[in-house]
Amino acid sequence: MAQNVCISVDAMGGDHGIATVIPGAALALERHPQMRFLMFGDEQQITAALDKHPKLKAATEIRHTDVSISMADKPGQALRAGRGKSSMWMAIQAVKDGEAGAAVSAGNTGALMAMSRMCLKTVGHIERPVLAALWPTQRGESIVLDMGATIGADASHLVDMAVMGAAMARIVFNYERPSVGLLNVGVEEVKGLETVKEASRLLREANLPNLDYRGFVEGDDLGKGSVDVVVTEGFTGNIALKTAEGTAKQISSFLKEALGRTWMTKLGYLLAKQAFDALREKLDPRKSNGAVFLGLEGIVIKSHGGTDALGFASAIDIAYDMAHYDLMRTIREMLEQETAAVPA
Amino acid sequence: MAQNVCISVDAMGGDHGIATVIPGAALALERHPQMRFLMFGDEQQITAALDKHPKLKAATEIRHTDVSISMADKPGQALRAGRGKSSMWMAIQAVKDGEAGAAVSAGNTGALMAMSRMCLKTVGHIERPVLAALWPTQRGESIVLDMGATIGADASHLVDMAVMGAAMARIVFNYERPSVGLLNVGVEEVKGLETVKEASRLLREANLPNLDYRGFVEGDDLGKGSVDVVVTEGFTGNIALKTAEGTAKQISSFLKEALGRTWMTKLGYLLAKQAFDALREKLDPRKSNGAVFLGLEGIVIKSHGGTDALGFASAIDIAYDMAHYDLMRTIREMLEQETAAVPA
Repeated sequence: MAQNVCISVDAMGGDHGIATVIPGAALALERHPQMRFLMFGDEQQITAALDKHPKLKAATEIRHTDVSISMADKPGQALRAGRGKSSMWMAIQAVKDGEAGAAVSAGNTGALMAMSRMCLKTVGHIERPVLAALWPTQRGESIVLDMGATIGADASHLVDMAVMGAAMARIVFNYERPSVGLLNVGVEEVKGLETVKEASRLLREANLPNLDYRGFVEGDDLGKGSVDVVVTEGFTGNIALKTAEGTAKQISSFLKEALGRTWMTKLGYLLAKQAFDALREKLDPRKSNGAVFLGLEGIVIKSHGGTDALGFASAIDIAYDMAHYDLMRTIREMLEQETAAVPA
Repeated sequence: MAQNVCISVDAMGGDHGIATVIPGAALALERHPQMRFLMFGDEQQITAALDKHPKLKAATEIRHTDVSISMADKPGQALRAGRGKSSMWMAIQAVKDGEAGAAVSAGNTGALMAMSRMCLKTVGHIERPVLAALWPTQRGESIVLDMGATIGADASHLVDMAVMGAAMARIVFNYERPSVGLLNVGVEEVKGLETVKEASRLLREANLPNLDYRGFVEGDDLGKGSVDVVVTEGFTGNIALKTAEGTAKQISSFLKEALGRTWMTKLGYLLAKQAFDALREKLDPRKSNGAVFLGLEGIVIKSHGGTDALGFASAIDIAYDMAHYDLMRTIREMLEQETAAVPA
């Protein structure tokens, strides 16, 4: 367990850059007062923003760069223009150099993925990093991966994801043996994609010490929270995530419209406002903001680009937990167990 | 446009069989008084159930069989035990023989797919049937396919789905040129699966007269109703559908719990009950029950196995529309246009 966790931050990333990053970091610091920050970006702007947050200022070291990656840059462009010198790259480099326990950026996903991979390299036998996110469920929260870092996956890649997702779950939920399911179109062993069926067989036979494989789960198990970790390849994972977001918005919009129809429904809304506020908080995407790149030699957290200070603070919280409870050690241990148990 | 549409019904299919099928058909008959029915199953039980519905009895011809397919039967089992003689097969056979304009079954999907394919064969150059469903959206309804009839699809199969989905949309929505989108992980042309990108190029170049191709859509576009028809292969489609269903249940359960917490929220709920009833009705899966197998030489409708009379009536309504407005002719015409416009 690392003491005095230092988080490196791409201060220029996201739709709002410093305006979100600095108040977000200040919020996260209140929850973890021992935390320190390395902030990469425009020194003058960062200094000005820090003036309103004296505690954060005292905990922060600024590293100046005037190169930043735009939200529209393609990964190749971003690498050419920003390798070694952009705020995004430098935040990642600080993890590689051991100066920071984790890096956080709200910058564009493709660029962050490409830079993280080039700078940090992948861990153990992993070839492609994946993106794992917290998913609010009826039971609490689950971890779902891959949210779209990599399109397509063969059976052994799905097994790797299960192992890394379980490692993350051990840290986030503090369970010794988190439950893991493979997303499929039915729970029967005969259904679905061949790669998913093969991964299921491998996971069942491996019977890993820190991973309780529970078989197939379906799309509706995501909301139920049937397992701690749901594994799928990036195309399906991304579409499931966005479908759920879209459905939540659709229901909110239906409900809002229905509640506004008569004076009686309006009055009912006012009286039950506490309940609607509780629902809004429960589904607040800012509370589960911050997806973790798994499979790299170091911890990189991707924040939503459009989030606000509260959302960015959640991403820093996740970075803190992953660094403090040493996700990388857990992943390395579990990948070794996997190598011993799963035939190549 | 066919007059006096006759619908063939697998009276023994689904979790509740005749107990759902007969009152469901009676409901649908009220909306389409010219409709006639061919009911396949246990004559004695059907006759007994029809006694409560004299109008339906007058519009129904019963064809006896004592063989029915169980919900648990695998497709192979179902074919061996039920080919030629089960209520499911006989309902499909009536379409092939021209006795009925469409068949409806609440029986198991795998068996219905296998029997439909064997009995009716596929239409034109189509090799594999797909399952298209109505999806409630913020704008009204969209058609989404494939909901899981076939796992995996190459580019030309996705193009076929777009064409058949648009044909169905022309009938359901009565638009001359329905808008169509391909489900992907981003709207930029560079992102996503190769097969999806290739299908996009083919659809754009074909510029078909009855299909307004709008490019990629994402998971959250499903709830928005951004396009009339959303095309994806069956694995993703099934997971998107179940994820949306799960999210809707999750939100309902959160809301119910929050509204029950204090006397004030309970009172608010009572006053706003009208709004909650409206929401429940809007999201009622029974109203959009009934998925259409597209790609066969005839129309087969799959009802949810667990639905009630109201849901089964919706499935019959869809069958009626598809037969009455001649879906098969529209599909044949549009497949010919596709063959002329899209290079093999």
